[in-house]
Amino acid sequence: MDDASARIASTPEPPYVAVVFSALLRDEDDGYAATSEAMHELARSQPGYLGVESARDDDGFGITVSYWADEPSAARWKGVAEHLVAQRLGRDTWYSDYRVRVAQVLRAYGPARTGDVR
Amino acid sequence: MDDASARIASTPEPPYVAVVFSALLRDEDDGYAATSEAMHELARSQPGYLGVESARDDDGFGITVSYWADEPSAARWKGVAEHLVAQRLGRDTWYSDYRVRVAQVLRAYGPARTGDVR
Repeated sequence: MDDASARIASTPEPPYVAVVFSALLRDEDDGYAATSEAMHELARSQPGYLGVESARDDDGFGITVSYWADEPSAARWKGVAEHLVAQRLGRDTWYSDYRVRVAQVLRAYGPARTGDVR
Repeated sequence: MDDASARIASTPEPPYVAVVFSALLRDEDDGYAATSEAMHELARSQPGYLGVESARDDDGFGITVSYWADEPSAARWKGVAEHLVAQRLGRDTWYSDYRVRVAQVLRAYGPARTGDVR
């Protein structure tokens, strides 16, 4: 994918909230890809959604960072996401380990051409 | 890699600081891999270092999250990392786009077996 803007979220000036989800997948073949896509779609429709970035190694380790306007919207998303995963098999089926970290973004830096970072 | 603990950082209870580095690589063949490994080694030796997680897609989009005890150690690391990258070619050679976000981790969740999250 050559369009960098499609991979790096165009977030506003801080502060905002980042939810960092780090996970090691057991196996991609249990409906994970479809559910992952469904979760991304669902996230976009949630109040306070600012963007998402996601990368996954060949060996199944992945990091997804979703950005939210404030803590209530991030907390609401956490509940929605957990409900969706529970409906579709559950984390223990997909992940051998994971961590969710909720963080307040204080500063952001990047190339001037991206426009949204000074 | 089957050892989840080698991929997910064993961070202490929050609060601590996360530096989220999202980047789209132009090409991996300009000494990037060696420099990336050198940066990880260098990070481990810095004061306040808590851990690092990194994932990269086949198409060159990657997310690296490093964790730091506090803002001064995260800021110090940012200076050290930029100096190293500048010495070895520079970001514009490797990255077509990137973003650095510095965030205060407020809460963390994960499976009980990882030990460091309630």
